[in-house]
Amino acid sequence: MSASEFRRTLLDEGILVPGGVTGLYHRSFAFERIARGVESYVSHAGDVAESRRLYFPPVMAKSTLVKSGYLRSFPDLVGVISTFGGSDRELPALLARVDAEEEWSDLLVSTDVAMCSAACHSLFPLFQGDTLGRDGTVYEIQGTCFRHEPSEDPARMQSFRQHEFVYLGTAEGALAHRTYWLERGTELLGALGLAVEVVVANDPFFGRAGRLLATGQLEKELKYEITSPISSAVAGAIASGNYHEDHFGVDFRILLEDGSPVHSACIGFGLERISLALVLAYGTHVDQWPGDVRHLLQLETGRLAP
Amino acid sequence: MSASEFRRTLLDEGILVPGGVTGLYHRSFAFERIARGVESYVSHAGDVAESRRLYFPPVMAKSTLVKSGYLRSFPDLVGVISTFGGSDRELPALLARVDAEEEWSDLLVSTDVAMCSAACHSLFPLFQGDTLGRDGTVYEIQGTCFRHEPSEDPARMQSFRQHEFVYLGTAEGALAHRTYWLERGTELLGALGLAVEVVVANDPFFGRAGRLLATGQLEKELKYEITSPISSAVAGAIASGNYHEDHFGVDFRILLEDGSPVHSACIGFGLERISLALVLAYGTHVDQWPGDVRHLLQLETGRLAP
Repeated sequence: MSASEFRRTLLDEGILVPGGVTGLYHRSFAFERIARGVESYVSHAGDVAESRRLYFPPVMAKSTLVKSGYLRSFPDLVGVISTFGGSDRELPALLARVDAEEEWSDLLVSTDVAMCSAACHSLFPLFQGDTLGRDGTVYEIQGTCFRHEPSEDPARMQSFRQHEFVYLGTAEGALAHRTYWLERGTELLGALGLAVEVVVANDPFFGRAGRLLATGQLEKELKYEITSPISSAVAGAIASGNYHEDHFGVDFRILLEDGSPVHSACIGFGLERISLALVLAYGTHVDQWPGDVRHLLQLETGRLAP
Repeated sequence: MSASEFRRTLLDEGILVPGGVTGLYHRSFAFERIARGVESYVSHAGDVAESRRLYFPPVMAKSTLVKSGYLRSFPDLVGVISTFGGSDRELPALLARVDAEEEWSDLLVSTDVAMCSAACHSLFPLFQGDTLGRDGTVYEIQGTCFRHEPSEDPARMQSFRQHEFVYLGTAEGALAHRTYWLERGTELLGALGLAVEVVVANDPFFGRAGRLLATGQLEKELKYEITSPISSAVAGAIASGNYHEDHFGVDFRILLEDGSPVHSACIGFGLERISLALVLAYGTHVDQWPGDVRHLLQLETGRLAP
């Protein structure tokens, strides 16, 4: 099945509902039930203490786009939020544009918030200027991310959730975290019957300078992806394990006790992509999925998973 | 307790974590557990067929801001998303601004997406140009909404979830839906031990023209709120029941079989506000809440509610 045939099936069967803009979807109860099941399944595997589990809103400080380096590397994917900052007297000019069906958004002003670019980008600012222990700290986080990359491929949504386990500590600890979670993640996703494979990967950095960054990421094997067919036979990332080196430690001045910047690593599970991969594998009728998959994802109850 | 004292308590106890911008919060597991409990509790009361339950992403088509009339009435609250639309050659100019710590967002271009302004605004476009039956249709929806109103009061978050039951049909049906749900909602929230009260309300329409709209809304009793103390002894809306008359029917050309525009009404439950009201009432330690409240919200398991 091609991605466009799969998209047609998803819409025809009401698994997803078109959101009015390319790459934007409303989720049916059936789809949300799968995504929550995956969330619960993945979360349990982590067994992180309650006090280290955080749920981020879909927006974050605009300054984080700069500090994290995301704006520099992926300027074409960011979302910055603007609003009307004028007075009563200035509104008619805006509405005149609207009524004339002309572009009106250049009359808005930028706010200090932007769309969350990656779940862990909302985490690092919490430790800005802090000194952490060498033992390392693991956080479980969930964020709703935005990527401005309109596509007809349902695997490439503009808004989607990442469920991550993020480590901050030493270089060795970060690498061990990534190794552990790539194995554990492969095991977890494989147990759902998905045809998973771990591959070295690189991000779609912007422009010519970006191609160098992408090559460096690939050569240093900083990023691995757990891939599986998502919306067609072509496999794509349903989870990824990133070793950030001391990138965020430097950017956010997060230090270890010896004064060196922390190293970090994360494993991120794409709740929407895993859900799509499951629908691709087992069909649009959750009630007819294999019993063990239904059991693992708590899909037997007809309710959202706990 | 004042709102600022309550905010201090929430942050000190880690129920919410500051999101780096006024009015932006990360949610702890404890808080998310309450919010999901409220979601589940409210959802069960609705008993809406699975096929009529939708979960919206935090962004929607920018055109919906115009068509719904929201931009006209609340221009200061909207969020429109812009991104970098330039080429490789234009990026250095953006980065130079960033490096000089000058404002850079005016070099971005507007996308065709905006922040979801109200959950039901994402619903109506689905019926654009449709003809619906007189019997009326009820949808259960959830949306993550954005309001640009930075405030130190935790009851006024910039990003929050609305869980709604929306009716589309006749004027009588819409009024009956609102009446039913104001009663049912009061009963549900009262059963959680919250000191609830139903009051006629009006929205903070923008500017001088807005004051007329607000007066009209109040005089026609189009909007009722279920109020309760949220972040201080001062009661605020934790749910609201709105009769839209034929506003959305006209704007989105949704008709009844006789050619007249549909009337609509919604009841919206504010998941974050209800959660805060519960924390204000019972304290920051969920384990010490009254047993019946814990039971109703499925807080006994130490997991997110189904």
